[in-house]
Amino acid sequence: MREAYHVELEQLAGNLAGMSVQVANAMEKATRALLGADLALAEQVIGDDAKIDDIRAECEEQAYALLALQAPVATDLRTVLAVIHAAESLERMGDLALHVAKAARRRHPEHALPEPVRPYFAEMGDAVVKLALRAEEVIKSRDVEAARSLEAEDDKVDDIHRHLFSVIMAKDWEFGVPAAVDVTLLGRFYERYADHAVSVAKRMVFVATGKMPGYGSAEDI
Amino acid sequence: MREAYHVELEQLAGNLAGMSVQVANAMEKATRALLGADLALAEQVIGDDAKIDDIRAECEEQAYALLALQAPVATDLRTVLAVIHAAESLERMGDLALHVAKAARRRHPEHALPEPVRPYFAEMGDAVVKLALRAEEVIKSRDVEAARSLEAEDDKVDDIHRHLFSVIMAKDWEFGVPAAVDVTLLGRFYERYADHAVSVAKRMVFVATGKMPGYGSAEDI
Repeated sequence: MREAYHVELEQLAGNLAGMSVQVANAMEKATRALLGADLALAEQVIGDDAKIDDIRAECEEQAYALLALQAPVATDLRTVLAVIHAAESLERMGDLALHVAKAARRRHPEHALPEPVRPYFAEMGDAVVKLALRAEEVIKSRDVEAARSLEAEDDKVDDIHRHLFSVIMAKDWEFGVPAAVDVTLLGRFYERYADHAVSVAKRMVFVATGKMPGYGSAEDI
Repeated sequence: MREAYHVELEQLAGNLAGMSVQVANAMEKATRALLGADLALAEQVIGDDAKIDDIRAECEEQAYALLALQAPVATDLRTVLAVIHAAESLERMGDLALHVAKAARRRHPEHALPEPVRPYFAEMGDAVVKLALRAEEVIKSRDVEAARSLEAEDDKVDDIHRHLFSVIMAKDWEFGVPAAVDVTLLGRFYERYADHAVSVAKRMVFVATGKMPGYGSAEDI
């Protein structure tokens, strides 16, 4: 009985890790769609979002069943609850990739982003995809050091995000308000995606320590 | 024993309802600070955010203790899990009110918003505070109809939010990129706040029906 239960707990963490890979792929493709004004790729991300929502629903149902049937305590209880929280963050990361893909679709065949800001988004895209994949590693390893390494990468995203504001607000910004609005919203999507990846890693690590993560959000605009 | 347990469950829901009132107050004050360029009020919201985070941590600890010690099943289990999710949304609503207050502080003694868009923000402010207070009612009543009424109010917020984009992107927008960026971000904070209020109400209502809420986010930009 206990044996079967730990197998289920492992499966649950496995599903969550799979979800991290899916949202990493979604953001990787969404970024390529955005930078290349690639409609087919954008449509693919948009069509695939339902799959991410499905895995999330599945994770949550598995977690609920575990709670109801096995009444876990201590570390096992914390693991199940961390999975519930992490699945919510990962679903949100999928939504943010979806928003990026929709922005690419909305402006097609034009580019959503003026040429000079594209390198920043390429860099943010790389960084946030790396964050999602690191979150996957942390889900599997529960490694505290690996979880900490996400924060450094998240700082990088925050730096680029802040710099973007100075670019669009500079006197020599020649692309007008609509492009500035797109840059503002898209920048925020990447920055929020990164925050959620950090939050997933924190939740999974604190399973091990039994201490609740800090609630004060490091996020700022 | 069972008696004491149901008292605890009621206390938990009571804490959550109290949290809704707190985030409603935070957004009401943040909106006044924003519209009146009122630094003292903005500082008050910023200082009070830690209290919201504390109630959230308390809700979560109570919920965890209930799960560990009472191993609830069926409706009781769903209630505890709904509280955990709802507390997360409410904490986020507090963060969004904090962002509004910080925007007011950042631009002080200037106004963060040009005069022509202030009425829209006044209207969105009213609507989202109403949403948070309706969420409180739903937490207490678990009334399905009351929960549905939130969606109509949320649609109103979405309409104003969409309209704001047409205002800042119009040819006759005379306040430049920086003001447009502020309007974009602030508009998004209100819109997300409203989404979270709807999500709180949904979670609490589905406790009664036992059906999981839809995961596809209605949110769009």
